[in-house]
Amino acid sequence: MTVERFSVYKCHFREDVAQHSYLTALYAMILADLEGRRGRRVDMEKLLRMALLHDAEESRTGDIHHPFKHQDPAFTKTINDRALQWFNDLMLGLPDSLAHTYIGVRKAEQGYTTEAILVKAADKLEALLWAYEEYLLGNEQVRDARIVEDILSKLDRIRLPSVKAIVAETRKKMKNS
Amino acid sequence: MTVERFSVYKCHFREDVAQHSYLTALYAMILADLEGRRGRRVDMEKLLRMALLHDAEESRTGDIHHPFKHQDPAFTKTINDRALQWFNDLMLGLPDSLAHTYIGVRKAEQGYTTEAILVKAADKLEALLWAYEEYLLGNEQVRDARIVEDILSKLDRIRLPSVKAIVAETRKKMKNS
Amino acid sequence: MTVERFSVYKCHFREDVAQHSYLTALYAMILADLEGRRGRRVDMEKLLRMALLHDAEESRTGDIHHPFKHQDPAFTKTINDRALQWFNDLMLGLPDSLAHTYIGVRKAEQGYTTEAILVKAADKLEALLWAYEEYLLGNEQVRDARIVEDILSKLDRIRLPSVKAIVAETRKKMKNS
Amino acid sequence: MTVERFSVYKCHFREDVAQHSYLTALYAMILADLEGRRGRRVDMEKLLRMALLHDAEESRTGDIHHPFKHQDPAFTKTINDRALQWFNDLMLGLPDSLAHTYIGVRKAEQGYTTEAILVKAADKLEALLWAYEEYLLGNEQVRDARIVEDILSKLDRIRLPSVKAIVAETRKKMKNS
Amino acid sequence: MTVERFSVYKCHFREDVAQHSYLTALYAMILADLEGRRGRRVDMEKLLRMALLHDAEESRTGDIHHPFKHQDPAFTKTINDRALQWFNDLMLGLPDSLAHTYIGVRKAEQGYTTEAILVKAADKLEALLWAYEEYLLGNEQVRDARIVEDILSKLDRIRLPSVKAIVAETRKKMKNS
Amino acid sequence: MTVERFSVYKCHFREDVAQHSYLTALYAMILADLEGRRGRRVDMEKLLRMALLHDAEESRTGDIHHPFKHQDPAFTKTINDRALQWFNDLMLGLPDSLAHTYIGVRKAEQGYTTEAILVKAADKLEALLWAYEEYLLGNEQVRDARIVEDILSKLDRIRLPSVKAIVAETRKKMKNS
Repeated sequence: MTVERFSVYKCHFREDVAQHSYLTALYAMILADLEGRRGRRVDMEKLLRMALLHDAEESRTGDIHHPFKHQDPAFTKTINDRALQWFNDLMLGLPDSLAHTYIGVRKAEQGYTTEAILVKAADKLEALLWAYEEYLLGNEQVRDARIVEDILSKLDRIRLPSVKAIVAETRKKMKNS
Repeated sequence: MTVERFSVYKCHFREDVAQHSYLTALYAMILADLEGRRGRRVDMEKLLRMALLHDAEESRTGDIHHPFKHQDPAFTKTINDRALQWFNDLMLGLPDSLAHTYIGVRKAEQGYTTEAILVKAADKLEALLWAYEEYLLGNEQVRDARIVEDILSKLDRIRLPSVKAIVAETRKKMKNS
Repeated sequence: MTVERFSVYKCHFREDVAQHSYLTALYAMILADLEGRRGRRVDMEKLLRMALLHDAEESRTGDIHHPFKHQDPAFTKTINDRALQWFNDLMLGLPDSLAHTYIGVRKAEQGYTTEAILVKAADKLEALLWAYEEYLLGNEQVRDARIVEDILSKLDRIRLPSVKAIVAETRKKMKNS
Repeated sequence: MTVERFSVYKCHFREDVAQHSYLTALYAMILADLEGRRGRRVDMEKLLRMALLHDAEESRTGDIHHPFKHQDPAFTKTINDRALQWFNDLMLGLPDSLAHTYIGVRKAEQGYTTEAILVKAADKLEALLWAYEEYLLGNEQVRDARIVEDILSKLDRIRLPSVKAIVAETRKKMKNS
Repeated sequence: MTVERFSVYKCHFREDVAQHSYLTALYAMILADLEGRRGRRVDMEKLLRMALLHDAEESRTGDIHHPFKHQDPAFTKTINDRALQWFNDLMLGLPDSLAHTYIGVRKAEQGYTTEAILVKAADKLEALLWAYEEYLLGNEQVRDARIVEDILSKLDRIRLPSVKAIVAETRKKMKNS
Repeated sequence: MTVERFSVYKCHFREDVAQHSYLTALYAMILADLEGRRGRRVDMEKLLRMALLHDAEESRTGDIHHPFKHQDPAFTKTINDRALQWFNDLMLGLPDSLAHTYIGVRKAEQGYTTEAILVKAADKLEALLWAYEEYLLGNEQVRDARIVEDILSKLDRIRLPSVKAIVAETRKKMKNS
């Protein structure tokens, strides 16, 4: 899990897949609990399993630069299908029948259930907080690549009140900085 | 979560609280699923919440050297009580009524339920795998401090078949290395 | 001596106990010589021994976060007493009768002699220069925790002309930055 | 050019794309001069341009794990075609008509001319020397993944006397270590 | 080639001799191609060999601080003569008759041919881009030492249109920042 | 004081001038106290001042590789004279009349008094312990350069019983490792 994220940028504070996955799981739990308070039903076990496994195969595939991987939907699908296959191979190294459970979790994470959306939101949120810190420290590469703005626009598509609030607050802070 | 663990030793591969917590949660999930296959009942949501929060306050208290903290039960209790209080303060910074839930999880983690034991096992296991890697690389400080041996003897007290197997295998490998 | 200081913060430039102790000894010598020029009597041998040993046991206890350790006088005393005991144990590993000399030096450093005050001033000054550099580089965690301001207020209590001058100059620079 | 190579492994000594490319160019020059002494004709300008540009786009695509990228010829081609396209886009950011020259160089590097073979040999050789150092230091991940053995078998396919000699010597050293 | 450059300064982003040499060779090629488009004749093979070897002996002599080495012409010459001698010794470790070729290249690099001037320009340019990045990030040591300004004034003496353009642009950006 | 020592070698554990100077001062104090117990007279203030200042100018001159600097006595003297001059310039930046005191200390350190010999012994000892650790970890560059053996042979010339004992013990350990 020592693969560094955002490896194409010079960064003040590097972050690897394990650190990212931990914070994603933590944020997913908090977002889910906030949405739960608002009455939305969340299967917490499913959510936490998803968050822990959502990037696990990256420890074997390396850090493919996000805009390179996402240059067009067909190419993204080609890479993702193979990545998923590598996730499966990785799981098949586990004892007993655990592999099938975890492969199921990983597949479900790519769907549109409440749990999957919350994990996606936490995943983006974690990237946002990392990128915003680099932005504040004057990281020119991160600024020029408009990473913060790009993540914010992706978070705009997530219709969860808890996420909306954080996005609005970050935008406000950026204007004043 | 950038506090480095085992900070008193020169290490080949450093590990911070976030990396440790991620792997602890992952191993806890795997151990629990293995025990589940054997028929033991595990509350998975409870277990994963515990694992994610089990060291959270260390990001605020720093890395207190394990043998220093554990020199005698009264001293350990003094430090742990304060650490728990700092965990509570940290949680009270969270929105809404989440704090109480998380303080409850953290307290439960110090008990003797199946979930608490599994998290403890995963916590020690993660330290074992880190220390064993340093051991293999010839880290004299880790060898002289007998960290691997110490963690193994702590794991001996945990009566879970899934843990027993890993401990036995590590002991065997160490003899042959 | 590889224990990193200020480990709970993300830092641009990390500093370990050896680096801190070197600069503390150097600054203590300079402050003492400046005060000496003004007519104050300083036992230089005693001062330098104190400076070299003032944090030596931290290489064994780890980096306990300063506000955690100093949350109330009773707790601070509990930790400090144990730290001193570990310093003693560390010294007892030395050949001959050196241990007693060094334990005496360490005890004297906690008193209120001119030498002890100068070492304390150098200790704080070193932390100030480190923190002020992080502050200038826009380190948000260091700014939010008000570390520079906190160290300056502690230095205010030290009535040495050489220290007063540096504190005043730093405050002036901070206003203009 | 700060993208780290071999990012999926914990490494004693990390190496980024710039360091790798420098050594590749240096080794390519030396191999070419050795082969030149033996009477083979090498276009040195072409060779050095190739070596300098052979991984340039990796600074934008990230470190895709070698076995992931090379899992089957069709997949490798899909990735390589896109990588080449990104190389082209990167070059189009350069002033004047340089882009076409450099795109031509990059294309030629994928052919089977003497120059292209020498650059490929230097590229593998650089990886070999890095991996062999990790191997000697007891890096278990590098040993288990059989990276040294894998690179040696690839170098076996290159029929240059200068390369054969180095491969034979490394194999001999490995047997004796 | 792991000797770090600018080692007397605390830096956000460190750079070693290999990284510097790679970028110098790349920039030298680009500058030469730009000047070639303007009609100037450049021996590209000679230029690229020079760039690859221009700092090679630093991997054995260490990073002597630039202002220390350049304090007066006689002292600079004393150091440079010995450095050249170490370069020669390093080359004599190479197989066959390569040494003489490379020693010739290294000597030619210290002359005033078009190729030597282009390598010198690329060498300074690489340092400029590194230093300017530290400048933008608020590196006080780099600012106080006026490194950017110093390199710019050295680049002023190089009468190549391609270099003039970059120098002018950097000066303009610095005024507006 | 952030200049790294032994910069031409890839190292497991790097050490900068501040860390080296701290340990040198600490070891000098211990050696002096041991010799004091045996009846030798040591001026402790003088010794500790010498140890703290013995490498201070390296923070401005960079890490000149030891064998390069010491290739012949005339060259070593040329470099050392200039280094001393830079030390003086550095001191002249200090307030009041401190400069003259410190320049005197630095000059005395290059003589043959008991204090100077003890500092030299501590300086070498610190390097020995660093190099021996790299040696044990299988650092091929440190082994091939025979750094440990070289430092031991230099320590052989120091006729202090406390040093003789450590040298003998290290040699014995090396034979058995």
